[in-house]
Amino acid sequence: MGKGGDGGEENMAAWLVSINTLKIQPFKLPALGPYEVLVRMKAVGICGSDVHYLKVLSFIYMSCAHFVVKEPMVIGHECAGVIEEVGSEVKTLVVGDRVALEPGISCGHCKYCKGGRYNLCVDMKFFATPPVHGSLANKVVHPADLCFKLPDNLSLEEGAMCEPLSVGVHACRRANIGLETNVLIMGAGPIGLVTMLAARAFGAPRIIIVDVDEYRLSVAKSLGADDFVKVSTNIQDLDEEVRQIQKAMGSDIDITFDCAGFGKTMSTALNSTRVGGKVCLVGMGHNEMTVPLTSAAAREVDIVGVFRYKDTWPLCIEFMRSGKIDVKPLITHRFGFSQEEVEEAFEVSARGGDAIKVMFNL
Amino acid sequence: MGKGGDGGEENMAAWLVSINTLKIQPFKLPALGPYEVLVRMKAVGICGSDVHYLKVLSFIYMSCAHFVVKEPMVIGHECAGVIEEVGSEVKTLVVGDRVALEPGISCGHCKYCKGGRYNLCVDMKFFATPPVHGSLANKVVHPADLCFKLPDNLSLEEGAMCEPLSVGVHACRRANIGLETNVLIMGAGPIGLVTMLAARAFGAPRIIIVDVDEYRLSVAKSLGADDFVKVSTNIQDLDEEVRQIQKAMGSDIDITFDCAGFGKTMSTALNSTRVGGKVCLVGMGHNEMTVPLTSAAAREVDIVGVFRYKDTWPLCIEFMRSGKIDVKPLITHRFGFSQEEVEEAFEVSARGGDAIKVMFNL
Amino acid sequence: MGKGGDGGEENMAAWLVSINTLKIQPFKLPALGPYEVLVRMKAVGICGSDVHYLKVLSFIYMSCAHFVVKEPMVIGHECAGVIEEVGSEVKTLVVGDRVALEPGISCGHCKYCKGGRYNLCVDMKFFATPPVHGSLANKVVHPADLCFKLPDNLSLEEGAMCEPLSVGVHACRRANIGLETNVLIMGAGPIGLVTMLAARAFGAPRIIIVDVDEYRLSVAKSLGADDFVKVSTNIQDLDEEVRQIQKAMGSDIDITFDCAGFGKTMSTALNSTRVGGKVCLVGMGHNEMTVPLTSAAAREVDIVGVFRYKDTWPLCIEFMRSGKIDVKPLITHRFGFSQEEVEEAFEVSARGGDAIKVMFNL
Amino acid sequence: MGKGGDGGEENMAAWLVSINTLKIQPFKLPALGPYEVLVRMKAVGICGSDVHYLKVLSFIYMSCAHFVVKEPMVIGHECAGVIEEVGSEVKTLVVGDRVALEPGISCGHCKYCKGGRYNLCVDMKFFATPPVHGSLANKVVHPADLCFKLPDNLSLEEGAMCEPLSVGVHACRRANIGLETNVLIMGAGPIGLVTMLAARAFGAPRIIIVDVDEYRLSVAKSLGADDFVKVSTNIQDLDEEVRQIQKAMGSDIDITFDCAGFGKTMSTALNSTRVGGKVCLVGMGHNEMTVPLTSAAAREVDIVGVFRYKDTWPLCIEFMRSGKIDVKPLITHRFGFSQEEVEEAFEVSARGGDAIKVMFNL
Repeated sequence: MGKGGDGGEENMAAWLVSINTLKIQPFKLPALGPYEVLVRMKAVGICGSDVHYLKVLSFIYMSCAHFVVKEPMVIGHECAGVIEEVGSEVKTLVVGDRVALEPGISCGHCKYCKGGRYNLCVDMKFFATPPVHGSLANKVVHPADLCFKLPDNLSLEEGAMCEPLSVGVHACRRANIGLETNVLIMGAGPIGLVTMLAARAFGAPRIIIVDVDEYRLSVAKSLGADDFVKVSTNIQDLDEEVRQIQKAMGSDIDITFDCAGFGKTMSTALNSTRVGGKVCLVGMGHNEMTVPLTSAAAREVDIVGVFRYKDTWPLCIEFMRSGKIDVKPLITHRFGFSQEEVEEAFEVSARGGDAIKVMFNL
Repeated sequence: MGKGGDGGEENMAAWLVSINTLKIQPFKLPALGPYEVLVRMKAVGICGSDVHYLKVLSFIYMSCAHFVVKEPMVIGHECAGVIEEVGSEVKTLVVGDRVALEPGISCGHCKYCKGGRYNLCVDMKFFATPPVHGSLANKVVHPADLCFKLPDNLSLEEGAMCEPLSVGVHACRRANIGLETNVLIMGAGPIGLVTMLAARAFGAPRIIIVDVDEYRLSVAKSLGADDFVKVSTNIQDLDEEVRQIQKAMGSDIDITFDCAGFGKTMSTALNSTRVGGKVCLVGMGHNEMTVPLTSAAAREVDIVGVFRYKDTWPLCIEFMRSGKIDVKPLITHRFGFSQEEVEEAFEVSARGGDAIKVMFNL
Repeated sequence: MGKGGDGGEENMAAWLVSINTLKIQPFKLPALGPYEVLVRMKAVGICGSDVHYLKVLSFIYMSCAHFVVKEPMVIGHECAGVIEEVGSEVKTLVVGDRVALEPGISCGHCKYCKGGRYNLCVDMKFFATPPVHGSLANKVVHPADLCFKLPDNLSLEEGAMCEPLSVGVHACRRANIGLETNVLIMGAGPIGLVTMLAARAFGAPRIIIVDVDEYRLSVAKSLGADDFVKVSTNIQDLDEEVRQIQKAMGSDIDITFDCAGFGKTMSTALNSTRVGGKVCLVGMGHNEMTVPLTSAAAREVDIVGVFRYKDTWPLCIEFMRSGKIDVKPLITHRFGFSQEEVEEAFEVSARGGDAIKVMFNL
Repeated sequence: MGKGGDGGEENMAAWLVSINTLKIQPFKLPALGPYEVLVRMKAVGICGSDVHYLKVLSFIYMSCAHFVVKEPMVIGHECAGVIEEVGSEVKTLVVGDRVALEPGISCGHCKYCKGGRYNLCVDMKFFATPPVHGSLANKVVHPADLCFKLPDNLSLEEGAMCEPLSVGVHACRRANIGLETNVLIMGAGPIGLVTMLAARAFGAPRIIIVDVDEYRLSVAKSLGADDFVKVSTNIQDLDEEVRQIQKAMGSDIDITFDCAGFGKTMSTALNSTRVGGKVCLVGMGHNEMTVPLTSAAAREVDIVGVFRYKDTWPLCIEFMRSGKIDVKPLITHRFGFSQEEVEEAFEVSARGGDAIKVMFNL
């Protein structure tokens, strides 16, 4: 029995083996390094990219970067657990600590790492991004500095929610959300909701959310949006839609997050935002979009993007600890870690509907 | 004889009276205010927007803002001249001073003015933007704080060039050009050229310029571009074009200026720029564009726009005074201020070809 | 009867006529300009600088700039009132509007105004800064764009409190207070308290305040400080004091505001703040200070100063409207506008003690 | 024979063994790690801190951080050499490459590293900062990502000069030196000179330098300062000195670098700099200083410090490669690597006088 085991019990993980096929199978862990910890997973959420990999075995981002699953890979990257063993040089954590895991290991040496934008690291190793295995497993080995201790008043599920919440936090940082920025959010899906919660916590005085689905909008309002505008999928009259949205805001729209990622939503975003404002494109939607880019540029409406996140776990934990953000209502479905439940959980997540966040309890 | 006159001589100006019709006619000046100066115009350049007004009597920008010429309007806004009279409270200028004129009078009170972005002023009064008259006239009245004294080693023509150069300077500031930013420029027209000159002066270590026209590219290279890439108007293979451009740069492309404003050029710009870089859309081209916006966002390639300029005259003057920028080669054609010459000058400017900047000497 | 009067009633104001002598005397207003409003004053607070002028007839700041009261001057600059007349071009306000007044009129033309730092305007005209008259008067004439309409749920006294609160808001902006900056405040006087309220509203997760006076500290805690440290005026052991303060914080001190302005408080501030943090010197204390500047520099602890404020009224009003800040407990004493009451009010303010803010109701 | 050796030749280094005693003695290198390289040293400069350690065996910075040499330590940290062996994972360098070495190894995990300010790393390992050995040795082992390849037109001595030049570059970055910042430099010693060279390369339009020593000032002028002001060590009249300096500048002083670090120089720096400007304290002088801090704060003259540098080697190399900076005139004395020469070199460096940079050729 090597490192990472504990007396004969075998470490099991959810492997993506081929299209639409997940299998719970043994997962052998590497030896524990001096700066690493062994974590017993307790809560793992399902992300849209997980579902995407399952359905088509690939994920495209960063223009020419196509991640393709060529060999079976353990899935999952939104997770929290309990420390079971610490490496010889680990001083900040002890066995029994409850921790949330930041999933990406940056190289620390490239110009992006040295420049403080480690999310753009050229040699990132990220849970469940091929060929790196993910964390939907009984146990994983991870660097200690990427495991963040949870305060007593936070559950492990809340710990796992640090990951999706981090997307919203990073988006708010890139868009400079603060006490004087009224915020418009296009799209009330999971990304739209975490962005809304983050924008609220960053102090945005007024937040309006837009979607085509009345149910989602009502959820968004119950979670803290000031008001919403229901639009149709076919824009008949973009100018009229913009007028409605601006009326709902009641003052200048300083920053807009497009959490849907369609040409339509981006066009509405660009035209609704005030002169000198910003649009932040968060959603991974269509790549090619037809948008009124020249008029946006001529109004100095800047467009910023987001790729994952950096240095967000401490702030996410503080937001939840202090009660500024409550992510618990986002967790709509829970499953155990059996073959059947894993399959069902992914089906529920893929269907969407009233499922916002599907969570495994291991 | 009232203010603004000098002994019987009548002030004449170039009026845009209807489509394709410019007439030199009398232009009565307002009384000189205490903080204003009367300037005898000496050099006035023709801008693309001047030509545009002449051809279609309107100019669209800022999304829903259509400027329409409803009544005859004096044209022209790139200008320099000599002070002929100063208002009672003017302390910084004296009669005889040679000055370059910044054409926009901001309100000083709105949130953009107070916040340091006066180019976005909601109540801007700008030469030759309807209903405000322009400066292609023997004399104009202008606020003293918008008239910048020229040093002895600069000509009045160079003073008039402060205006187009300001577009490049403002673009470089918005894109944060500096000693560590390699620059790609899409488009070698007048805007591309002033942006290139500005980027060089801001310290960009390497500048590559792209166009479809070999002659323009050779001009760009003679003016300071390190290298160029000739592309075709029909992109067969965007990836291949990107590869050629990146190879010409030889290292990461940190910032790209799209000074052409087509869907094609913007797509090339977005895909060529490094992760975490910036694309600055300077050109006023097509409004709706089909562009790979999601992959750009996912690579944190941000898009910034420019609207005119702010606080650029002193830096432009310093660039030319110190020899960091030489705009004289951009002035390709010169005309006097008679009816025939004004008509011919606009024709030359509209044709393009080897005409970069067409200048009137009054 | 000229402009600014209304049927025989004479406008009275509190004039500083000589050392320690204030007199309520007639104050003739200028004609109302097109962009100005006539405001009937309702609430005017006393500031430390008002008391200073009264005691020594001068005020020194900006190094070599000594403001000296050479001729009788109307005092007062923290104020709110009701619009009684509007200039011909005023479109944003109507008679009867309740407004808070920003006291400084910047020139709009100098490089500081154009650059967005109008508080540094070289030609500022500021209430009760010689030779400009102040606002402790029945009526004043002021530019409309410096009069900010109060929402219904704010009193005119709260309106007058925008001015001292603005000092705290500007300090927080200069120091970049946000969700991740733990804040230390040296000094629990009026400036320390408004800075604390502002830092809380800007989202500072933890605020520790330090003073020599137990009563002031208890007030600070009741108004929102997380904890305080009482120190003695004679530092025996600076290192020990720093240790106590750091222990009270319980984590890194990211930003320190020195709202006292002694060599001692500044030394504690510099040594307590973490590597890479910031110290903001808000208080107008001793000019020459002996401080450990080299070690602060070598730890990249930067020092930023504040001069008045810029563009703070809308945010102050929003903070009070939304309940994020309650300034009412700061108003400890109220007086009417008779000769006796004015004299008494200044005495109370000068004595300090339990007086935080002394307010006139006119 | 272990790693790092080559056939019997013993690696020798200059050991600081006790006060005023340097000995050339054997220095055993650690085994070469996979991401490390073995560098044969060719050029090593002497820094003021080296001399300081030699004279008093300790160096104080970062307030309470006293570095004390408790055991014999190899000295030296300004260096360049030739790659002699590369670790198994090194892909960017090959044997024979000529490289300049950045001396500090940051942890990559702490909040400063993750936030892009790795020079503030809490666990930095830095050449010749106890207990870490330095680089005045025949050979050293160093991480490959901290070894920067020199272009053909740069000598190894110029490579070693990257280190002192980095101090100037980091100072310019912290102070935001650019095309519109006129620069004042207090002190024409080695730090003042590298700061001047860097400020010039960053585009500062006008640079004035101040010192008490006429010879140093003449050197500064020959190296690129626009003008200088000679002051006396005893300031009789600070205001008069400020007036002289401001007159020499001829316009606003936007940024001042205090490269001397006395109360006197810092007072002159603070009072000379324009409203809203910056003073950057670069020199390691007296810790406690008596300075006019309140008036500086009230003029929003900010004070920023510098600690070493981060991410400066590529820019230093580019500055020298392109000819924007020529450091060769700074190298005034050269020595070989024998016991006698090492002793003499440190004596020359300690004496100052006409010695700017003393360099070893190994």
